[in-house]
Amino acid sequence: MRSLEVKNRTSAEEIKSLRLITAVKTPYLPDGRFDLEAYDALMNMQIMNGVEGVIVGGTTGEGHLMSWDEHIMLIGHTVNCFGGSIKVIGNTGSNSTREAIHATEQGFAVGMHAALHINPYYGKTSLEGLVSHFEAVLSMGPTIVYNVPSRTGQDIPPSVIHTVSQSANMAGVKECVGNDRIKEYTDEGVVVWSGNDDQCHDARWGYGATGVISVTSNLVPGLMRELMFGGKNTCLNKKLMPLIEWLFREPNPIGLNTALAQLGVVRPIFRLPYVPLSLAKRVEFVEIVKQLGRENFVGERDVQVLDDDEFILVGRY
Amino acid sequence: MRSLEVKNRTSAEEIKSLRLITAVKTPYLPDGRFDLEAYDALMNMQIMNGVEGVIVGGTTGEGHLMSWDEHIMLIGHTVNCFGGSIKVIGNTGSNSTREAIHATEQGFAVGMHAALHINPYYGKTSLEGLVSHFEAVLSMGPTIVYNVPSRTGQDIPPSVIHTVSQSANMAGVKECVGNDRIKEYTDEGVVVWSGNDDQCHDARWGYGATGVISVTSNLVPGLMRELMFGGKNTCLNKKLMPLIEWLFREPNPIGLNTALAQLGVVRPIFRLPYVPLSLAKRVEFVEIVKQLGRENFVGERDVQVLDDDEFILVGRY
Amino acid sequence: MRSLEVKNRTSAEEIKSLRLITAVKTPYLPDGRFDLEAYDALMNMQIMNGVEGVIVGGTTGEGHLMSWDEHIMLIGHTVNCFGGSIKVIGNTGSNSTREAIHATEQGFAVGMHAALHINPYYGKTSLEGLVSHFEAVLSMGPTIVYNVPSRTGQDIPPSVIHTVSQSANMAGVKECVGNDRIKEYTDEGVVVWSGNDDQCHDARWGYGATGVISVTSNLVPGLMRELMFGGKNTCLNKKLMPLIEWLFREPNPIGLNTALAQLGVVRPIFRLPYVPLSLAKRVEFVEIVKQLGRENFVGERDVQVLDDDEFILVGRY
Amino acid sequence: MRSLEVKNRTSAEEIKSLRLITAVKTPYLPDGRFDLEAYDALMNMQIMNGVEGVIVGGTTGEGHLMSWDEHIMLIGHTVNCFGGSIKVIGNTGSNSTREAIHATEQGFAVGMHAALHINPYYGKTSLEGLVSHFEAVLSMGPTIVYNVPSRTGQDIPPSVIHTVSQSANMAGVKECVGNDRIKEYTDEGVVVWSGNDDQCHDARWGYGATGVISVTSNLVPGLMRELMFGGKNTCLNKKLMPLIEWLFREPNPIGLNTALAQLGVVRPIFRLPYVPLSLAKRVEFVEIVKQLGRENFVGERDVQVLDDDEFILVGRY
Repeated sequence: MRSLEVKNRTSAEEIKSLRLITAVKTPYLPDGRFDLEAYDALMNMQIMNGVEGVIVGGTTGEGHLMSWDEHIMLIGHTVNCFGGSIKVIGNTGSNSTREAIHATEQGFAVGMHAALHINPYYGKTSLEGLVSHFEAVLSMGPTIVYNVPSRTGQDIPPSVIHTVSQSANMAGVKECVGNDRIKEYTDEGVVVWSGNDDQCHDARWGYGATGVISVTSNLVPGLMRELMFGGKNTCLNKKLMPLIEWLFREPNPIGLNTALAQLGVVRPIFRLPYVPLSLAKRVEFVEIVKQLGRENFVGERDVQVLDDDEFILVGRY
Repeated sequence: MRSLEVKNRTSAEEIKSLRLITAVKTPYLPDGRFDLEAYDALMNMQIMNGVEGVIVGGTTGEGHLMSWDEHIMLIGHTVNCFGGSIKVIGNTGSNSTREAIHATEQGFAVGMHAALHINPYYGKTSLEGLVSHFEAVLSMGPTIVYNVPSRTGQDIPPSVIHTVSQSANMAGVKECVGNDRIKEYTDEGVVVWSGNDDQCHDARWGYGATGVISVTSNLVPGLMRELMFGGKNTCLNKKLMPLIEWLFREPNPIGLNTALAQLGVVRPIFRLPYVPLSLAKRVEFVEIVKQLGRENFVGERDVQVLDDDEFILVGRY
Repeated sequence: MRSLEVKNRTSAEEIKSLRLITAVKTPYLPDGRFDLEAYDALMNMQIMNGVEGVIVGGTTGEGHLMSWDEHIMLIGHTVNCFGGSIKVIGNTGSNSTREAIHATEQGFAVGMHAALHINPYYGKTSLEGLVSHFEAVLSMGPTIVYNVPSRTGQDIPPSVIHTVSQSANMAGVKECVGNDRIKEYTDEGVVVWSGNDDQCHDARWGYGATGVISVTSNLVPGLMRELMFGGKNTCLNKKLMPLIEWLFREPNPIGLNTALAQLGVVRPIFRLPYVPLSLAKRVEFVEIVKQLGRENFVGERDVQVLDDDEFILVGRY
Repeated sequence: MRSLEVKNRTSAEEIKSLRLITAVKTPYLPDGRFDLEAYDALMNMQIMNGVEGVIVGGTTGEGHLMSWDEHIMLIGHTVNCFGGSIKVIGNTGSNSTREAIHATEQGFAVGMHAALHINPYYGKTSLEGLVSHFEAVLSMGPTIVYNVPSRTGQDIPPSVIHTVSQSANMAGVKECVGNDRIKEYTDEGVVVWSGNDDQCHDARWGYGATGVISVTSNLVPGLMRELMFGGKNTCLNKKLMPLIEWLFREPNPIGLNTALAQLGVVRPIFRLPYVPLSLAKRVEFVEIVKQLGRENFVGERDVQVLDDDEFILVGRY
């Protein structure tokens, strides 16, 4: 079902050069549908602050809470509106090979520049099964493979990465296992993005990582740009740590969702099973914003604590 | 769920000016999925021959045989690849208001320029219900309302058109009831496209129609361009009649599907319940092509009769 | 995907003997989901009053406003709760052969006793296409073919019925074209149910019809039972005419939906594009109920006119 | 959307008494659809050998590789055919609360006796989020909560179980963390099924577990019945260990799928990302069957090694 006409078709080489990619948040309306106006605003903030690519419907963007038609629509929308200014990487991975094939085919058809593929989480499979899964989608276009065993329950070992790296479409690995694993890959010429914001500075400047696929850059895109482009900067890295630690105290994107609502750039609406951080933690965030400087964060409103009853939790949507 | 960022956003006024719109054929692979390479080639032929807009997934494009995710993907694909050269009008209508709302929202989100909306066929409804149905989608963007009682079982009467025409998004009507009805509308300033290829010349030059939404232009886009732009031309119109009559002997798009396969521009694959025209009729088509001149038709291969067993009919896909 | 284990498996012969089949209404909750408690109550009223079969998700039951998973769920639910007391005929037809195949396979898997199949409405097809469409589903189980050209835009001619009647699964035809067409079939031994309540008495007693697939029996199941089982009864037939005429003044199921809400057996909730009958017509209905006798209608509450603002119209659900 | 009519409605108390529940395998046809004949045969083998309940579409049954309509259809089918002989527990859990709500509602509507609910795997959430997730579905009917951190990436801690146990619908926990955790629960009166076949004997006879939700019982239901009902039997437990160890060398259900194909009770068809065990391991299985006795396994054909090319792997279905 390939098309040769897709505009802005991107090569794996171009993807390999991206240093700052944001796993962008998906904002919602009170009935749980996408809030495209807020989304577009977030995208513009990313672009204006030097972010080079976005993961659409990643774990952070809650792709696992989307129907596939919503998901592909959001990829198509992002390509249409912002595809000339930023690389659009669709998270078309799944623990079902069928779904991954179908979504990836559709994602490339609507113009995404690259696909992000996870190994089959929860269901898991054998090493041979892992290779079969990735090979079923690699022929479709530039691909980033994503390893996050703390979510999937199964590490993608280097042997599997070596096998799939033989495909010309393989752009690289988003790796969350740590910087030693990253060094193992970069020593061999495999492109790697750190998937851990707290390690990404060291990964970039000390372990050969090309850059980061970041959650924190939703909030402070300019500072993350500086961290990835401005040379080794342990001072800035240290300054960011309280924010990063705060963000990941509960499973991501709970912290991010709460923070963006407090910053007034998205409505305080959560799709279950996510619920906002507690009042005490929200107070901490206000303090963190003051420390880092409001001007470094996205949005222009005063940061707010928000009352518990200002949040809307949506189960049916 | 509106976005203000969508590229190439088009006003209803721009849609009103289109004279030649093709209800483009959807070609298939042997397993029933879309053949995007063939589709892209068809689109390029349309653009090169002066067609100004396409209906994606219309009755001709077999939108009723698509899942909605396929349908929206095809709209997004068409916008991405050709949206700068041609207006993309998504047939996001349905006999279910819920489906029409959902699809129209998604179609505009991926960048379509206008929506085509049918009245609720098969299920039908009251006049109040018709108005409610159209009002549920009109706020989303430029809209063409489609009236074809021979398919829907229910005429959209002028009173309903008058009511919905109060919306600034209402671009006009695709009308199949005949040229007297067209005149009734154009006298009042309502923009109309003829939905009948055999009447469109007269509609354009004698009854005030803006143009045509055409099936025949899939095959002879240049001649249809001449018919809509070149001034009154009864000679050309008469010359086209044998082709048009041949095309509509069985319910559309049976004739079109058969013809495009014979011309070698799509594979001879049908999604059921459509089946190809008989051998005898396929022989007739070869003769028609000779009469009109192969060079006036799309594609570059010799026109073929094709054997019955060269056609593939797909039920599960 | 056949199963040989399905309980209460029914033969085409058993389906052929049913005289009174109700095209049962689907009631809704305020958010547009199914109101299963009201549905179950309706089903019990049908069973207690001698109705022998139900069409689930027919035109009357608004199958065209259901997602397929809702539709199959409702069939499965009906089989589970009432399949021992009444024949459950799933409307698993579609104008898309793919959808008809998929839904019919699923409907039989969850235990439905027979399928109702429409010809491809709106899209239409050739006679060969019609036969291919029906043959794609006939092997799956007992089947009733439904002909209603005023909705589909295309008559199923006797030649097609003769061809499909060669299948052992063909139970018969639901015919809306009129009693002459019915006689043509019954003279040849084809089983027919009248699809027009106003003609069903004559069809049954004068033209050889086996019975009726009825809308009116939702409201007055006992009287319709009498009409089909009690011998020729022009007096009762005449008495029912005002009700039947009232029911069909707007496209079905608008009248039925309004009436059941007025009788207090379903909530006054409409899925768009259906909207309730006007106040004037609702007043008429109260009068009709008085004339025929409240005790002949389903439910036990006083019949009400209802205010316009008591009705809820749902577009997103 | 509750129905009070559903047949064989089961109380949480009845669910609590089940000692042997099989997480039943879903067999496939060569095109990847369900093989209902093979499924029905498997179900009959389970019932005849004393299994009291089945998990439909569990991890073992590859619910994560099903579309939801397939999944609900299989639950409805199982209830229709076998619901009088065995308890049908639908795995209507999901990492998306929306999906869990929708599927659970549908599963109970088609008659399932209980739901199995996992915590949100991969996406994860906070403890408050876990409680919100389970509370969104607990009101619908009897529920088993499933804890398997090696797949989900997140342990359900006892505090969450205590909170959800306040619901009258909470039947108990399928626990994979180990027998100490099981003892903690059973000491407090919480019903637990072991989710680890290698620990279930000790769990049942030494740690208070009510029974097991088993994979191995697909293959040797009679022996597992003996293990759960026949009193402490370390000899039988030891005898089963080589089989159990073989089964779980690769992520389940890879071993089970391979074994059932070798036993000739399902076709050798795998939905990706699962692939069969290697030839060497298949040879081992033949030996294990000989050791335990062919007569203790399901099916009647000779156990086979099967060639690699006898297996069919399906990606699109």
